[in-house]
Amino acid sequence: MNHKSLFEKIAEKRSYLCVGLDSEKEKLPASLSRLKDPILEFNKRIIDSTHEFTVAYKLNVAFYECNGTTGWNTLAATAKYIREKYPEIFLIADAKRGDIGNTSRMYARTFLQNMPFDAVTVAPYMGEDSVIPFLSYEGKWAIILALTSNKGANDFQYHSDDGIRLFERVLNVSQKWGNLDNTMYVVGATYPSMLVEIRKLVPDHFLLVPGVGAQGGSLEEVSKYGLNSKCGLLVNSSRGIIFAGEGKDFDKVAGEKAKELKVEMEKYLVQRSLI
Amino acid sequence: MNHKSLFEKIAEKRSYLCVGLDSEKEKLPASLSRLKDPILEFNKRIIDSTHEFTVAYKLNVAFYECNGTTGWNTLAATAKYIREKYPEIFLIADAKRGDIGNTSRMYARTFLQNMPFDAVTVAPYMGEDSVIPFLSYEGKWAIILALTSNKGANDFQYHSDDGIRLFERVLNVSQKWGNLDNTMYVVGATYPSMLVEIRKLVPDHFLLVPGVGAQGGSLEEVSKYGLNSKCGLLVNSSRGIIFAGEGKDFDKVAGEKAKELKVEMEKYLVQRSLI
Repeated sequence: MNHKSLFEKIAEKRSYLCVGLDSEKEKLPASLSRLKDPILEFNKRIIDSTHEFTVAYKLNVAFYECNGTTGWNTLAATAKYIREKYPEIFLIADAKRGDIGNTSRMYARTFLQNMPFDAVTVAPYMGEDSVIPFLSYEGKWAIILALTSNKGANDFQYHSDDGIRLFERVLNVSQKWGNLDNTMYVVGATYPSMLVEIRKLVPDHFLLVPGVGAQGGSLEEVSKYGLNSKCGLLVNSSRGIIFAGEGKDFDKVAGEKAKELKVEMEKYLVQRSLI
Repeated sequence: MNHKSLFEKIAEKRSYLCVGLDSEKEKLPASLSRLKDPILEFNKRIIDSTHEFTVAYKLNVAFYECNGTTGWNTLAATAKYIREKYPEIFLIADAKRGDIGNTSRMYARTFLQNMPFDAVTVAPYMGEDSVIPFLSYEGKWAIILALTSNKGANDFQYHSDDGIRLFERVLNVSQKWGNLDNTMYVVGATYPSMLVEIRKLVPDHFLLVPGVGAQGGSLEEVSKYGLNSKCGLLVNSSRGIIFAGEGKDFDKVAGEKAKELKVEMEKYLVQRSLI
């Protein structure tokens, strides 16, 4: 999927919602606990009830990896389920990988070749050769951490050289490695006004924005400061959707929450004459 | 294992060698190709022939992950094999993980609780809450990326705020999160003289130094600038040991290469009166 076709999907769905499948075993509804693979069943039901309102799913690899080989099977089976049943979905492995070139090549192969993900989140600390391998698959994307939504973002990301903060340097330098069709950035929703500054550096790129909902970010503000002429946003919500309901109708509740966000997004897309 | 007991192991073994099990399927000797799990068999034979000269093994998770669930089984089985047969070994998951707190907790649980690793390598870009979860297991370690050995290290790690470069800020700030018993740093061997500057900031910490051998670093220089009063170094060699031989006696050749490095390390430990 390239930049243009991603925008087309957004226009069709009238939504730029990404649902984060942070499917933590301990938080699953009790009604699933006797199944063979409760997480896979949970994911399938969440996906079936939210896909209509959703452009992307983001699988947080940590939540699968911690269940060992069973978890890897669940990760792969969930990705396959989405790819086969809802082929229009943009599928993100939230893995925060990044290592020297020959190692990053392995990570890229894992998610972009062996599994059907469209994109992998990548940590930029190790620089160009740690990111390039993720850019070498036609139609696939690296989503590079720029400014994250957590408290620890303050420790290093604002470190400033001649007035250029580290996250700005990441945005500047990494634009030379890829292009609009294979590079996206993670920008947290904690301080939406920062999006104004970020849009000065990357006016046209897609941004993946986590932190709306459970982490406190506002969809209205993120949209106000982040939308560009091709939408340019994927806004993620995880816990606020998938764990909104605790009963047997958890999927229905998740669908309603996803729909609420979609309706709000649709409003902003219309206001900006993007659809 | 704490700082004191790690030094005791080094003094017993008269070596600060870490062998990197970057066991890439395509590079395995042809003689193993018909086995059910060639990588596990390769690892076992490499471990049996090198453990005598080795303080630590480092498993590069990417090389296992890319083989899917089979790979995770191999990773877990290799870690178990080392832990049970050679319990004195310091066992490192080279995973370069790091995410917001609730996600890093999952990664920490994966490697430090569900698998018997003593340490995980961690990327610092997301700051304190992304690293702290790895420091909360008694006797276990986070090995934080400071200055890496790859070309891309130049992109961001030297970004300088009031003369403090990013890798220096990582060293300064992260020392407040942990202590000598649970924090180590990755410092590449590409420019061993940088170790002089690094030792000014972290005189007492252990450093994990990759890049000796295939990546061109010199063990003599790394030892000259990096050794401290409790050794303070784990020097990693991967391809230069495990793929030194291509025939049926690949394990014997690996053992000889490991022994060469151990003998050289022993010399430096004696010169410094550390053993």
